[in-house]
Amino acid sequence: MSVPVVPSGKLLVEVCLSPQLYASYHREHSIVVVIDIFRATSAICTAFQYGVDKMIPVAGLEEASAYKAKGYLVGAERNGVAIDGFDFGNSPFSYMSDAILGKTVVISTTNGTQAIEAARHAHQVVIGSFLNMTALCSWLSKQEKDVMLLCSGWKNRFSMEDMLFAGAVSDRLSRDEKRFKLGDAALAAKYMFQTAQKNPYRLLHGSSHKERLSALGLKEDIKYCLSLDKTEIIPVLENGKLTRLLV
Amino acid sequence: MSVPVVPSGKLLVEVCLSPQLYASYHREHSIVVVIDIFRATSAICTAFQYGVDKMIPVAGLEEASAYKAKGYLVGAERNGVAIDGFDFGNSPFSYMSDAILGKTVVISTTNGTQAIEAARHAHQVVIGSFLNMTALCSWLSKQEKDVMLLCSGWKNRFSMEDMLFAGAVSDRLSRDEKRFKLGDAALAAKYMFQTAQKNPYRLLHGSSHKERLSALGLKEDIKYCLSLDKTEIIPVLENGKLTRLLV
Repeated sequence: MSVPVVPSGKLLVEVCLSPQLYASYHREHSIVVVIDIFRATSAICTAFQYGVDKMIPVAGLEEASAYKAKGYLVGAERNGVAIDGFDFGNSPFSYMSDAILGKTVVISTTNGTQAIEAARHAHQVVIGSFLNMTALCSWLSKQEKDVMLLCSGWKNRFSMEDMLFAGAVSDRLSRDEKRFKLGDAALAAKYMFQTAQKNPYRLLHGSSHKERLSALGLKEDIKYCLSLDKTEIIPVLENGKLTRLLV
Repeated sequence: MSVPVVPSGKLLVEVCLSPQLYASYHREHSIVVVIDIFRATSAICTAFQYGVDKMIPVAGLEEASAYKAKGYLVGAERNGVAIDGFDFGNSPFSYMSDAILGKTVVISTTNGTQAIEAARHAHQVVIGSFLNMTALCSWLSKQEKDVMLLCSGWKNRFSMEDMLFAGAVSDRLSRDEKRFKLGDAALAAKYMFQTAQKNPYRLLHGSSHKERLSALGLKEDIKYCLSLDKTEIIPVLENGKLTRLLV
């Protein structure tokens, strides 16, 4: 596999715009940040803030059902809608509940858990959203590792809001230009974020995912998922389970 | 396959940011515009402007060699460099030659011909670059078809300059907002183009492909590939060969 040339001594920040492109962006020692702003990774960050102990991301609904049968709490969503017979969907609000305190919760969503699956062989996988952005950037900037910002997108297609967040992180990290070099997609994402930062709602106006969620009556979810720094927790994947990163 | 919802009566303009994502963006009746600004599609437009009769895009070098052995003129490039033993690389300047007048030229490049290959089952495939942009947009706006702007990228990764051109076309077509609706990636590309249009060189500063070509001493190629409307010809794929679209 061809690897981009990075000026000696600098770490590469790159954005992978679809889980399907993962292999083309994989680098052996990269930290992968999985991003699904609407709404899986926003929901996961919220669940940790509200006291969940662990989360088990699963790609398939059959696996989710099997966990449910074993007595686990399970969140399951497809196409923006919570699936009947499970405990949660992927609205962050549904995880603001005492029911999850100290528990292990299984989660399966349309896009986010597929991206986690794509990155399962990465050096390290963490979960990013606007809700934990400052903590995430601060931690990333202290690691001596390349960073891959992995956008979950929508069924392998590009999603505006995921690129926007990737751009926000690229923007922050690139301020330390002696340490970090941005790849092409990270540079593009940074420009998009810089254009949009005064009014992200305007940028997202007309984007398909926002329209899809608005049509489902989920405008409050959109607003919440775009709010900054509600938690300092960075969920990290360890042996197939998400847990709090100890920083 | 899931298909984006398009408001009734509107045509969808979408940008596919890597040939690897082609299947996720394929729509039965879309016109696919293949884009490889640095430099395959710029070179192809130039060759038609300088009188080539047909071009045969081939993905593999073995196939290119086989054509060469049969006496064809052949252009072959990998990683930005023309390959020894062939007649051309993919610099547009190399096709400004009487040698191609009325001839059929075979071409194989790192990315562009791979994108043409990915789109081979599309309803119609045409070639786009800044060099034929106005003619292309004018023609697209008269067809009653969805449009997929297919970025060749770099070895399945994102390329800034291809998204920039896709954004320029999305910007033009979306001015007719009763007819066209932009998908998410097209919307993102349009925003990027609008930010960059006063100074595309600045946007491309730091992008990997520009740095790669600059390192190869190809700054004049970059400048030429970003210049507008050198030709009114739209190359179109017919039975595996590129020819002039009759408009």
